[in-house]
This record gives sequence, C-alpha cells and structure tokens, in this order.
Amino acid sequence: MFSYGNNICLSIFGQSHSPAIGVTIDGLPAGFALDLDELQAFMQRRAPGQGAHTTQRKEADIPEFLSGLVDGVTCGSPLTAVIRNADIRSSDYEQLWDIPRPSHADYTSYVKYGPSRDVRGGGSFSGRLTAPLCIAGGICLQLLQKEGITIHAGITQIGEIKAAVPYPAYPNEEMLAAIEEARQDGDSLGGIIECVAEAVPAGIGSPLFGGMENRLSSIVFAIPAVKGIEFGRGFGAADLRGSENNDAFYVDSGCSDSDNDVIKTKTNNHGGILGGITSGMPIVFRVAIKPTPSISKRQQSVSLSQLKEMPLKITGRHDPCIVPRAVPCVEAAAAIAIYDALLEAKSYL
Amino acid sequence: MFSYGNNICLSIFGQSHSPAIGVTIDGLPAGFALDLDELQAFMQRRAPGQGAHTTQRKEADIPEFLSGLVDGVTCGSPLTAVIRNADIRSSDYEQLWDIPRPSHADYTSYVKYGPSRDVRGGGSFSGRLTAPLCIAGGICLQLLQKEGITIHAGITQIGEIKAAVPYPAYPNEEMLAAIEEARQDGDSLGGIIECVAEAVPAGIGSPLFGGMENRLSSIVFAIPAVKGIEFGRGFGAADLRGSENNDAFYVDSGCSDSDNDVIKTKTNNHGGILGGITSGMPIVFRVAIKPTPSISKRQQSVSLSQLKEMPLKITGRHDPCIVPRAVPCVEAAAAIAIYDALLEAKSYL
Amino acid sequence: MFSYGNNICLSIFGQSHSPAIGVTIDGLPAGFALDLDELQAFMQRRAPGQGAHTTQRKEADIPEFLSGLVDGVTCGSPLTAVIRNADIRSSDYEQLWDIPRPSHADYTSYVKYGPSRDVRGGGSFSGRLTAPLCIAGGICLQLLQKEGITIHAGITQIGEIKAAVPYPAYPNEEMLAAIEEARQDGDSLGGIIECVAEAVPAGIGSPLFGGMENRLSSIVFAIPAVKGIEFGRGFGAADLRGSENNDAFYVDSGCSDSDNDVIKTKTNNHGGILGGITSGMPIVFRVAIKPTPSISKRQQSVSLSQLKEMPLKITGRHDPCIVPRAVPCVEAAAAIAIYDALLEAKSYL
Amino acid sequence: MFSYGNNICLSIFGQSHSPAIGVTIDGLPAGFALDLDELQAFMQRRAPGQGAHTTQRKEADIPEFLSGLVDGVTCGSPLTAVIRNADIRSSDYEQLWDIPRPSHADYTSYVKYGPSRDVRGGGSFSGRLTAPLCIAGGICLQLLQKEGITIHAGITQIGEIKAAVPYPAYPNEEMLAAIEEARQDGDSLGGIIECVAEAVPAGIGSPLFGGMENRLSSIVFAIPAVKGIEFGRGFGAADLRGSENNDAFYVDSGCSDSDNDVIKTKTNNHGGILGGITSGMPIVFRVAIKPTPSISKRQQSVSLSQLKEMPLKITGRHDPCIVPRAVPCVEAAAAIAIYDALLEAKSYL
Repeated sequence: MFSYGNNICLSIFGQSHSPAIGVTIDGLPAGFALDLDELQAFMQRRAPGQGAHTTQRKEADIPEFLSGLVDGVTCGSPLTAVIRNADIRSSDYEQLWDIPRPSHADYTSYVKYGPSRDVRGGGSFSGRLTAPLCIAGGICLQLLQKEGITIHAGITQIGEIKAAVPYPAYPNEEMLAAIEEARQDGDSLGGIIECVAEAVPAGIGSPLFGGMENRLSSIVFAIPAVKGIEFGRGFGAADLRGSENNDAFYVDSGCSDSDNDVIKTKTNNHGGILGGITSGMPIVFRVAIKPTPSISKRQQSVSLSQLKEMPLKITGRHDPCIVPRAVPCVEAAAAIAIYDALLEAKSYL
Repeated sequence: MFSYGNNICLSIFGQSHSPAIGVTIDGLPAGFALDLDELQAFMQRRAPGQGAHTTQRKEADIPEFLSGLVDGVTCGSPLTAVIRNADIRSSDYEQLWDIPRPSHADYTSYVKYGPSRDVRGGGSFSGRLTAPLCIAGGICLQLLQKEGITIHAGITQIGEIKAAVPYPAYPNEEMLAAIEEARQDGDSLGGIIECVAEAVPAGIGSPLFGGMENRLSSIVFAIPAVKGIEFGRGFGAADLRGSENNDAFYVDSGCSDSDNDVIKTKTNNHGGILGGITSGMPIVFRVAIKPTPSISKRQQSVSLSQLKEMPLKITGRHDPCIVPRAVPCVEAAAAIAIYDALLEAKSYL
Repeated sequence: MFSYGNNICLSIFGQSHSPAIGVTIDGLPAGFALDLDELQAFMQRRAPGQGAHTTQRKEADIPEFLSGLVDGVTCGSPLTAVIRNADIRSSDYEQLWDIPRPSHADYTSYVKYGPSRDVRGGGSFSGRLTAPLCIAGGICLQLLQKEGITIHAGITQIGEIKAAVPYPAYPNEEMLAAIEEARQDGDSLGGIIECVAEAVPAGIGSPLFGGMENRLSSIVFAIPAVKGIEFGRGFGAADLRGSENNDAFYVDSGCSDSDNDVIKTKTNNHGGILGGITSGMPIVFRVAIKPTPSISKRQQSVSLSQLKEMPLKITGRHDPCIVPRAVPCVEAAAAIAIYDALLEAKSYL
Repeated sequence: MFSYGNNICLSIFGQSHSPAIGVTIDGLPAGFALDLDELQAFMQRRAPGQGAHTTQRKEADIPEFLSGLVDGVTCGSPLTAVIRNADIRSSDYEQLWDIPRPSHADYTSYVKYGPSRDVRGGGSFSGRLTAPLCIAGGICLQLLQKEGITIHAGITQIGEIKAAVPYPAYPNEEMLAAIEEARQDGDSLGGIIECVAEAVPAGIGSPLFGGMENRLSSIVFAIPAVKGIEFGRGFGAADLRGSENNDAFYVDSGCSDSDNDVIKTKTNNHGGILGGITSGMPIVFRVAIKPTPSISKRQQSVSLSQLKEMPLKITGRHDPCIVPRAVPCVEAAAAIAIYDALLEAKSYL
C-alpha cells in the first residue's frame, strides 16, 4: 500500500534505481501559491551528501512538477512531482539479489515479490522514498503554516548520547563525534527524534481508528528504520500513578481568541491528544530510529538460491547514522497526517 | 472513523450507555464454523467484575449475532454482533457534561461534537468499546488458528513492577498488591503489555503505508489508554550499534516445510517485520498503557459553561488498573490486523 | 462490499431471514435532531403489504436505534439502527438451496460463498436490505433538507405503460391495472424511475472517479433489480447533434443570492452534472428496474447438487412489480450520495 | 477523486496542458512481463490524429515508465507511467478562462476550484486523461488475458445510424459519412458503445455496493461524455415481463472443465451479473456517449467576470465524434474493474 490519507490522498512511487521517484497528492485546495524556494530548502534538510555523517551519493533532489500547478499555484487537480534518479551505480548491489542484507528488506521483499523484485539500492524500501514524502510533507507544512500551525522535530538521542538541550535541529558535537567513531568502525548508530506540532486546534481526530495517534503512527512507520512511537509521556506513563500522569485543566485568561483556546492543561503528559482528538495543547511524539542496517563490517547472511549460510560484506554508499536526515521526514509525516485530519474536521464546521 | 481494514472491514458502534454496542465485520470467508464457547471465553478475559483490580460494573457481555451466521457458520454476509448495555447508572456521570475529567476525552469530545456529545460513561470513548473489538478479534484469532497462527499477549510491567518471567497472562502477586495499594489510595496504575504472534508466514505486509507496523499501530491505538508502541527492540534499538542490532540470517535445516521456512534470524531485534513485511520470525511488539485517568482523588478541572476552574471528585465505578483487561484487547487488535493483511497477501498467490 | 461513502461511511448488514437487518452510519454531524416521524413515514413508502401490487409479507419496519442518538439528537458517534425480522417463514425457501431461481442471485451467491450461503429469502441479496438503505437515506434527506436540497423520484414507466404526467409518486390507474394483470398471470413487470434533486449547489463532485455520476451510479446499483442508469438526456443524447444537446448558459437576474446562482442553462440535457461536478441545475437521472424475477409460472432451472436440469415453481410471497416500492429507495440512494459529496465539498470552503 | 480500486489502486494525474499526464498503479503482481508493443498498439486505438473524424492534435502518446518495471517485468512496486504533453497550443483556449463552453466542465470547474483552475484544453476534465486510463487498462487487459478473459467493445450507434452487424471495432461507412457531414456543419455526434467481457469466472463481485454493476459504472463514468450505462437488457427490461426477461438455467454438458462452468443460461438478459456477482455468462453493458460539446457553431454562453451573456465561437482542434476513440477507453475501464474484482475474489480461494 503506497497511498495514505482520507481527505488528501497521497500516492508515492518509485524505487531507488528506477528512472524516477515521485508523489501524487490529490485533494489539495486550489489557489494555493506554493513557495518553491521554501520547499527546496525543506527538501535540502533530508538530502544526502551534506556531511561526514551522510551517504556520499549525490542527488540534486529537485522536484519537477508534472501536474497540479499552474504558474506555481495549485489548480485543484492532483499535484504530481518527480525526482529523477541521476546518480545510479547499480553494480554496487548485484550480490544482494541472492544474499540479503541483515535487517534490510532484501529477504522479506524476496518472499513477497519473488525474484522479480527490484533489490537495487533497496528498491522501494530505500530511504530514498522519503524524498517524495518530504515533497508532500513540505507542501502540507506550508498549508498548515497558513493556519498558524507549526511543526518542528529534533534529535533527542543518537546512540547513547542524549540531548542536554531539547530538540536541536542538528546533532550536537558529541553526537557528531559518536557518528564519526561508528563510521570509522564500519558500524552505525540509531537514535530518537521528538516532534512537536504547535497551535493545532482542539477537536481534530476521532475515537477508535481515526484518532490522531492512529493516523500519526500509521504514517510515521512509513519512514524506514522507525521501530517505535510514543505520544506525550508515552512508555514513561507506565511508571506513573494516575494522579501524577493526569493533566489538570485550567483557564488561561491571557488568551482570549475563542472559548476553546482558553482551556489548557498545566502539564502535557497526554501529548496534545485525548481520546484520539486534539486538545489544543502541543502534539508531542517521539520515534525510535534503529541503527542503519548497512554497515561495512562482515555479517552473516544466507544465499537464497543455495539455501546455505554466506558471509556478507556490504560495499557501496551508506549513512553511518540516518537520524539527522530523518528529522525532516518526521516533520513531513506529521504535517501530512495533521493536514489530512484538519480537512476532515472542516467538513463539520 | 470507526472502521478498519482493507480486506475485512470492521465497523464498531455504540456508546457506553447507548442501548447496545456492537461490531460489523464484512469480508469474512463463508463456511467458517465459529466456536462460540471459545469466543465467549476470550470475551470473558476482558470482561469487568473479575477481581479486586477491576471495575464493579457487571456486564454479561454475551454477544447476540444479528447477521452473518447461519447455525453458527459464517454465510459470507457481514457478521454483526451486539451486546446490550444492561447495567447503566447514568446519574453517576451527570456532572461530567460540564466538568471534564482530566486526561479523559470529555473535553476533546466536547470541542469536536459540541454539547450534543454523549458523555455518559465516556460515550464512544469508553473502554467498553473494546468489547466489540474483542468480538472481532476473537473471530480473527479463530480464523488465524486454522492457519496455524497464534497470538499471545502478556503483562511485562504494572506501575514500577516489571515482570521477572516474560509474558504472564495475568498480573503476578506483586503487581496485584501494587494495584490494590493504588486502589486504596484512590489512585491508579498503568503498565506495559507485550504481544507475540507466532507462525505468521513471511511475505505479508508492504513497504510504506501498508507495512505491518503501520497496520498494527493504527489499530492498537484504538484501545483507549495506549500511548506508545514499539516493535522488536523498539526504543532500545536507539542505544545499539548496527552490528549489535542487525539480526544475522541462518538456515534452519531442522525445518523442512518449505524453502522460506528454513531461513531464520539468530536474534529477533527486528520483531518479525523488515521493510513493513513479515520475516517469518515471531512478530513482537509492546504497548504502553497509561494509568487509568479515573481516580477518586480530588483533581482540578474547569467548568465548560462558566469557563472557570473547578475541583472535581470522580465517583462511580472504575478500574484502578486496566492493564490486565487490556491484554486480550491487544491480542484482538493484533489478530484483526494480521488477518486483514493475510487476506491481502492471498490475492497474489 | 457492504459499505459506501468517503465522508460519511454507511455499512449495511443483515439477511432476509437473519435475526435483524440494519445500518451503521459514521460521520453524521453531532447535534442534529432527527425527525423520527418523518423518517417512519419515509420508511413506510417502501414497506411491503401496502396494496394488491406488493408482497403480502408484513413487517413493521420500525427501526430501533442502538447507538448514535441521545434523546433523538445525533451525538457524533456512529448511528446504528436495526429492524428485527419478525415474520419469517423459512420453510418457503427450502428447495432454493439446491435449485436456483432464474435471474435471482441464488446461483451466483452459491458460486461465491459456497453451500454455507444464506439463501433464505434471498439472504443479503433480498430487497429487504433496502430497508436499512432507506433508514440511512431518510436521515440524509433530512440533513439535505436543512440545506434547502430536495429529492423526489417518480415512476415514468411500468411495463409498457409510460407516464403521461411526469414523476407521479405512485403508479397511475393504468399501471395498477397492468400490475394486477401480470399478477393474475403469475408474472411480473419492471419499469423506469426518474429522480430529481433540486437546489444542490454548483461545484460538488470531481472529475474522473469521484464524479457525481460515478457516485450516484455506484450506490443506485445497490438496489436489487436496477439494470441501467442515465443522466440528463442519457441514452437519448446519442441521437442528437452537439448543437442540439449542448445546454446554453444564461444569466438569471431574478435570482440574486450569490454570483454562482445566477448562471443557469436554458435546457438541462446535462442533468445537472458537467465533468462530474454539479452545475446548480437539477440533478436528473433515470434507472431501469427489471421485472421481479420471482414469478409463479413454471421456469427452467438446474439442480446444483445433481448438475441436471430441473423445473422450478416458486411459491411464497413476492411482488408482481417492485417499481413503486423502489421509488423511495432511489431517493434514499441519491440522498446518501449527494450528502456524502456535499460534506467533501465543505472541507474546501 | 482521482483514484480507483480496492485491490489494485489506480491514481491518475495531469491536465491537458500540464507538462505530463500519467498514472500510478499499486497492487500489480510482481513478475509479470508486460508486452509493451501490445500496450502501444492498444494505446494507438485511442490516439488522436488517425482520420478525418478525429482531432488534428498530434500526440505520440508513448508512455515512459518511471517505476514499477525492471527490464519490462513488474517488480511489485507501484508502476508509474507518464506521457509528456508535447503539442500544446495554450493560446487557443484563452477566452475560455472567462466564457465557459456549453456542456463542458469549464463552468463547474470554475465553481469548484475558483479562478486558479486549469482551463487550458479542459484541464483534468480533458479526454486526454483517458490516455493514462488506457495505459492502466491495457496492462489489466494483458493480466486478464493470462487468465483467459477477453474484453471487446464496439460501436452500436453513431448519431442516428445504428449498427447492422453487432460490435464492429470501427465505425462503418455510413457512420463515417454521418461524422463527416456533422464536421462540415461545424457540429458533432454522439453514440452508443457496447462492451462484452468473456470468460470471466462466476462468483466475482458482491451484493450491495461492491457489485460488478456498481464497480463498472463507477469507473465508466470517469470517461468524459458518458451519460448512461445499462447491463444486459438494461432499459429494455422495463418493457418485458418477468417470464420474458428471466434467463433459464441449463447444463452445458459439452463443457467439462469444472462444475460451475457447466451451468449456463439460455439467454443473457442479465448481462452476466446477478446480485452484483458474475454468473459466468458474458458480461455485457452499453454506454451512452453524448455528442462532443466542442462544436464550431456559434453558441450562447456567459462571461463569468461580467455576469452577462456572451456569444461563444470555439476554435481550436476537436473531434466531431469521439465515439470511435472512446471504444478502447471503455475496454480499459472494464478491464480495470474486472481485474480489481478478480484479485478480491482470489483472497477467498
């Protein structure tokens, strides 16, 4: 399933080494002037080739808009944007047709799709498909901004290094050093990203399957390497008593825009979502990113054709830590889910 | 959104104090003889009134089948089962129309639905709606069992007490004592539940939005009080290096059913899912349950009509810890998601 | 597939002889006071047992609301209404398990669902399932009425008798006589129903798959016996030249509510829909209803178990002409499709 | 809504004068070797510029595959194909921003999308978007062919000329003469297309909203200019008695592949579908195509900016009769709907 959304409908396509990757977004409002520079700047945050900690593959990642835009303004028809896959060196991946990389999707895609699957560069399991996710997310971020809603994610942990200052946009020095050390060891690191959406109006989402936690988690796990998500106090709530975890309501008289806006909670252990519906407090969630499975160290795998064990040494380009590049992807995912839910809520105004 | 599923379609309805609650499941195969005793036994595991740690509300929770079954066998038409809401004392909840309970959905449902919302017993945000979820899940468990797939969840933590033995079906003595202590304090506890699905064939799910993590998380968050989910090593993976977290493949020659079955991983940090697709290893995930927000202690809230702060003392029946009753709900959610994905995979055989 | 809708979600369940039939509607706005008498009067128009031309089966067809309503007002949770199947004489249908009635679904349901299918009274293929469709449609009609939108269907043909006066709500004398004649012959008649929706605002629907023709046709074919649908001039447009079929625009200066309202077309060959989107002119469509397949005359069928030809004489109750009872069903279907599309359009206001 | 399908998911994008148009198809099985020459030959049947009766716009209409294919074989990832819009003369359409063409979507798209809509060449309402529909349909036709299923459509009427021989693939001499006559008059013609799908197995589809009539009609109305659809005897069934319209079953002993295959009907008034489910008899339906709304004759319209009536004379390229080019589009639509339903049925084998 490569599509997402109830009110907008997102459809992502492409493989790491296909001619192009891209996204179609149906349901965008007509008449919205897209800020292409801002979108490009957002895309740049996830682009590879930005530092010692990222892959050396160079991709300009400049979207071409095939439809949906007339002179930079949405026209109401589905918007399709594609990115050409320019710098492809498929030969790097030849052995992977037979010997799956541990903790990659090489084996599971083989079982699902058979020998015709595209394993080059990870096929459609590649982190490269977060580029179209970021196109869609970047557009939703601009649409949300118009409504006063902002979304920011930051790194709270890389490997064993935890952030002293909350939500920095980029890894701190200590983190960069840990990444470099892992790289030199032919190894990799994971981490934790926290995302905060502010000024989301109260009343969006629904109980049961359409809750904001349901919607956010079901898109965030589309980012490869995400293995967990928690909202507000999350797993930490298990240690607390109700009297500690409950968020007391109060009236914020300094805020007089509307009746709903004045009701707030003193703490935000609920992460801005109660019963699947936004409370007006910031939406806060954290995602766990596993360490990049592509490492240079020799690993044990199997030959699919011979059904016997085989050592594997992965060559080719890869990030020792994808956490920094995943930060804008998490923002993109959040923006899409929140914008989609916001449109739904508008039907009932 | 009260429906779930791409291949089966689940539709849950009802409020805590409406005449009935229930579920419709479309897409079940015809000709399946439902074991009603087994279903009832499964339902019983989440039913209230079972011990000191559960609410005193008594509900027989015996489903009546309105359609889809002929002499206990599915006929291919949508199966609808309802449970009457017998033991209703709505007067308990009257103050809640105006004074929302902290960390409940009373306030957010007010913003979304306005004053016409049904706040009695939590309306459709009530844990009571996990009963129809368990009907659907219990049926899917039986369908999966026919394919050799089993699903078991257990408690790994209640409050600060962690399980020494993994996945017990019921709280241990120490946990029960902690719950009783919280109850006497007018307080409540949360916890962590781990769920394992065994013998799920490899090759089920898909990359991006249709991955098993996406599907499982988007249904698990339908269980009230769930605030986090992690797969395999989950958040713990952030602390590891790739060489530690990667799961080496090997050939299990003792297992000769089919080619795919012989390929396994030595560890299962990936929790049975790689690239959104099952690997054939057990699917393992954990969910965080927040402490029951209904506590007897005096709390601070607000009056929605007067827009001023108000103390609140919740009376009425409630569980000091819903973790034990949430265990079958997690199994039910997992069974539904896995069965739905399994049907999809069958289209391509 | 027993569900319909993108913004509301309709889910119908039940078989002719199951304990009950019903419908769940998710996505209704909260705070709407349902007029239950009006709904009952609407239901009554499709109810059996009203005259010589209808089946003798007596069903009170009074919906019981299990959820979604509090004191007659929608609360935002899914509304579920059920009708008990009271007057069941299953013995009438026993031979049908083996000998399918011509032009009924007895044979195709056997192939799809196997011997476990519910053939009693037509199972879920029965016209009886239009009762829950009418509950949902009756509710949508009330919601549309609040927006000034009205929907009326009428009979334009029964057998070979065409209506002299357009859109009568009930068959005229000549039609009733033809029905009675068919009944006495142990035979049946079909007909054509025309439906008009007035005051639907312009701008609702979309090109391609979400067009109003797509949405209306995909729900109208849910009414058993419908075998064709045409919009505006429909099949008649094939005979015309463009200069005859095109509808010239003009400005209706007498109508000054809003800019859009003043633009109209002199003719309405397009039936109120251009490019899948409403034009503000009345939506007009016609549906073809085949003659009731249940006739008393001896017919040729086969034994499914013996795979040999068998004569069949259908006993039991049935309508010689279901066209009159199908009229409110067509209105119901139209109301659901239009209300669903209207909600979608509101997201973009 | 630009997407279709429950098991495959089709997503069409593009406007007549956007850089490209295209389609994404998710859910195709992996390992299918696409016959690109056959696909191109199919595409060619709807391509413009083939005769006196078609538009003079020249488009090579050669799809470029951006993803989903590796060496001509599907890999399981979504297949995206695009066609560049090469021969664009947007200046032809400038007056249309303000003066909507009668019976086109110019006015309704203005109401829906506002002044930012793309009116050039009809935007996404253009018949040009049937090219990506034909890419998807051509692929489904090949997939169906592998299962022995064939689909053929033909013209049964153009203007007032009805086909003597059923289902010719191209207009006969008399029809061509009528088209040429209309062209010389600056006018246009419509017509009727009949489509037959053979060897579709019995048992596909479902009652209510997922019936084959529902699925086929909801995609066929995506073809611009379609204003009606009827199955089997269709509107003609209204004139018949049940005893005439019912299709008697018989056992075809010459056909011994499987039990189901030997049960057939002597007539096919039901058009291969009973209760929404295929009967194994040929699926037969007809669609009404209105005369091309673009005619050279002077017509009456309005100025949207000045809200006053305006004469309009359409220049630019257009077909005097699009019926011949619509024939493969109808086959494409049928193939997509049937293949999608076939995949669903496979889940239950």
